[in-house]
Amino acid sequence: MLKQPIVLESKIIIRNAVETDCDDIMRLINELAIFEKSSEQVRINSETLKRDGFGEHPLYSCLVAEDSTCSPSRVVGMCLMFNVYSTWEGKSLHLEDLYVEIDYRQRGIGKAFFSTTYQIAIDTNCARLNFNVLDWNTVALDFYKSKGAIDFTEKEGWHALRVTRDEMITQLNKNK
Amino acid sequence: MLKQPIVLESKIIIRNAVETDCDDIMRLINELAIFEKSSEQVRINSETLKRDGFGEHPLYSCLVAEDSTCSPSRVVGMCLMFNVYSTWEGKSLHLEDLYVEIDYRQRGIGKAFFSTTYQIAIDTNCARLNFNVLDWNTVALDFYKSKGAIDFTEKEGWHALRVTRDEMITQLNKNK
Repeated sequence: MLKQPIVLESKIIIRNAVETDCDDIMRLINELAIFEKSSEQVRINSETLKRDGFGEHPLYSCLVAEDSTCSPSRVVGMCLMFNVYSTWEGKSLHLEDLYVEIDYRQRGIGKAFFSTTYQIAIDTNCARLNFNVLDWNTVALDFYKSKGAIDFTEKEGWHALRVTRDEMITQLNKNK
Repeated sequence: MLKQPIVLESKIIIRNAVETDCDDIMRLINELAIFEKSSEQVRINSETLKRDGFGEHPLYSCLVAEDSTCSPSRVVGMCLMFNVYSTWEGKSLHLEDLYVEIDYRQRGIGKAFFSTTYQIAIDTNCARLNFNVLDWNTVALDFYKSKGAIDFTEKEGWHALRVTRDEMITQLNKNK
């Protein structure tokens, strides 16, 4: 969580998301999925986001960027994260999504999200910040590397594997 | 969490870890790190594991395999996991470590851990199970693929990036 909102020179405000931001966050998630050529993979909606992020045991936390010069103000970016655990280093932070609307790029919002995420990781005693990037997204890869990130798939050969819920059910039924 | 302990034919018991297992879990984490050629990267100890897994807000949960034929019984394997969040599919489970002592392999413990993890993911409404594997660990990769896992680094080009705490501090100081 961010202790206090940050106001950028462009009058964009970076602040913690609240429950009523979920429609906007969902809109931005869908935009990012289209960019990542994966829009058919989005299966949640803003109600899921409300339940999972703003209940008794939140599964994530989120920052939003808000253009305060618009009336009403407009959410133009989001940065969603959660804690993970390393058996080598302990509590860590995972940055799941960082997205800024196309018309608001090159205005320091992505950089502000990223440095705020670093500050949150440090303030909450996290040993690392982890995130995943597509290898063809060289703009993002170069940006992250310029901010001190190391590509552990490249360096050590770590691959990300995944099993879908349907596949888990199929596999468990095989063993019965 | 596992609802009830599972007793394998070999009289190995799969059960939820308790706080007093942390010394054994730490021993197995160190053994696995040596296998992964990364023992110098282990910076936590069993006290860290106790604090982070068994306090008010646990950062992970863990299964252990216990050889009940030994007296006292012996912890011979562990399987550590935590919840993560997908902005496409919602609540998911991440399997961080699965390890069985070398003398106890080929006795179904790894398979039992894995199918138990599937069951936990399904029972707790997770959309996916995620985990990371080193590309030279072909035995593990083949096992996981035989259990329905898809390699998303291979398939879609996802790379795992990481920033260390020291590097985050350096980067933030640059901006001051």
